Amino acid sequence: MRDDFWEAVGLKLSARNQLKGTVKEVVSDGVVAKVKIHIDAPMEITAVVTKEAVEELGVKKGDKITAIVKSTEIMLGKD
Amino acid sequence: MRDDFWEAVGLKLSARNQLKGTVKEVVSDGVVAKVKIHIDAPMEITAVVTKEAVEELGVKKGDKITAIVKSTEIMLGKD
Amino acid sequence: MRDDFWEAVGLKLSARNQLKGTVKEVVSDGVVAKVKIHIDAPMEITAVVTKEAVEELGVKKGDKITAIVKSTEIMLGKD
Amino acid sequence: MRDDFWEAVGLKLSARNQLKGTVKEVVSDGVVAKVKIHIDAPMEITAVVTKEAVEELGVKKGDKITAIVKSTEIMLGKD
Amino acid sequence: MRDDFWEAVGLKLSARNQLKGTVKEVVSDGVVAKVKIHIDAPMEITAVVTKEAVEELGVKKGDKITAIVKSTEIMLGKD
Amino acid sequence: MRDDFWEAVGLKLSARNQLKGTVKEVVSDGVVAKVKIHIDAPMEITAVVTKEAVEELGVKKGDKITAIVKSTEIMLGKD
Repeated sequence: MRDDFWEAVGLKLSARNQLKGTVKEVVSDGVVAKVKIHIDAPMEITAVVTKEAVEELGVKKGDKITAIVKSTEIMLGKD
Repeated sequence: MRDDFWEAVGLKLSARNQLKGTVKEVVSDGVVAKVKIHIDAPMEITAVVTKEAVEELGVKKGDKITAIVKSTEIMLGKD
Repeated sequence: MRDDFWEAVGLKLSARNQLKGTVKEVVSDGVVAKVKIHIDAPMEITAVVTKEAVEELGVKKGDKITAIVKSTEIMLGKD
Repeated sequence: MRDDFWEAVGLKLSARNQLKGTVKEVVSDGVVAKVKIHIDAPMEITAVVTKEAVEELGVKKGDKITAIVKSTEIMLGKD
Repeated sequence: MRDDFWEAVGLKLSARNQLKGTVKEVVSDGVVAKVKIHIDAPMEITAVVTKEAVEELGVKKGDKITAIVKSTEIMLGKD
Repeated sequence: MRDDFWEAVGLKLSARNQLKGTVKEVVSDGVVAKVKIHIDAPMEITAVVTKEAVEELGVKKGDKITAIVKSTEIMLGKD
């Protein structure tokens, strides 16, 4: 049962973006599960996009912006 | 130059997770750019992970949890 | 119900690749759904890969090439 | 020199979405490269999103829809 | 049935990371399936992360490191 | 400098796939870095793909298979 590589890890991650929150709902299915999380604290996140996108959108310091992430791209970590 | 498919879009997205914030820094490179964003408002996000992960982590309503996203997985949108 | 951050958005996206088409089939499951889409128009897409891959594949202007995307990486937008 | 695992592969892929086209431009950088591709043939693609997104967007057969993919999610294959 | 673009492909892939192994288990669901694979051989993989992450983690030649991949990011190929 | 959310984390991750190895090379760029890693131990990984892909590829227990991951999808963790 893959117990060999699934242990508590005490590591530092290269992922720039770690959003801390509280689980609101868990819906399990045959293979996957959907987890809704309430993020309460203000935080800073980092996105890497094409330079071309930044130029065409005209993204600059102070701009209001929306960071968009697909739910399948999010991993969960628990202490 | 791809102006044909890069226009302002008035659409609804399937992405569950849209984090609104303010651009703190933009660092451009030859091909890619790094954008740091301060997210101020509390929000709700949705993750889809394997049911197996949810069970092994023991994720349930009320748990403190960390949502982890790689910076290359984040898209940007601007009004 | 996350109605606070799920509204019609009038935004420009950093995603280089927006493929317009027509829904052919929708199969829903407990947590996820599969959507088949017919893309009709010619279009231009942008890929970011390692420079090393480009060199080993010998990718250059005029080459016939296949862009490969996993179905879980695709988001949907609707007017 | 990872020549041991980088050879021509004659395989069938699980990726639902293989878009055939012609390279229009290659811009190389220190580590990554941007490749623009013109897709000429009509094609069918498959997206997997949350059932919730499909319901909120009201996605059904016959709808006009936009499939959105980040450029970093695209792999390239060459015959 | 998308039979038009789902054929055996004899192509070279830009994906740096091709892990060869043996299927241990397949669990199918309505829309998705989970496939467990035993990877036997030593191999080399390539990750692209932010330079910032490399510096903060202090990643350098000879370090012990863990490469982390979400299960939804893995495609399958078969000869 | 985001020091507030970048600390050593002692967490369990939902990522099914944690490949332990040794850094062979680090190439840094303006924004991103490429890290080559030698994985020495055999391991088990889990992929989530469409059920349709599993059926068309005819994936079953005992099959030889290739797991393919794009380098931008890999995160790094360090003890």
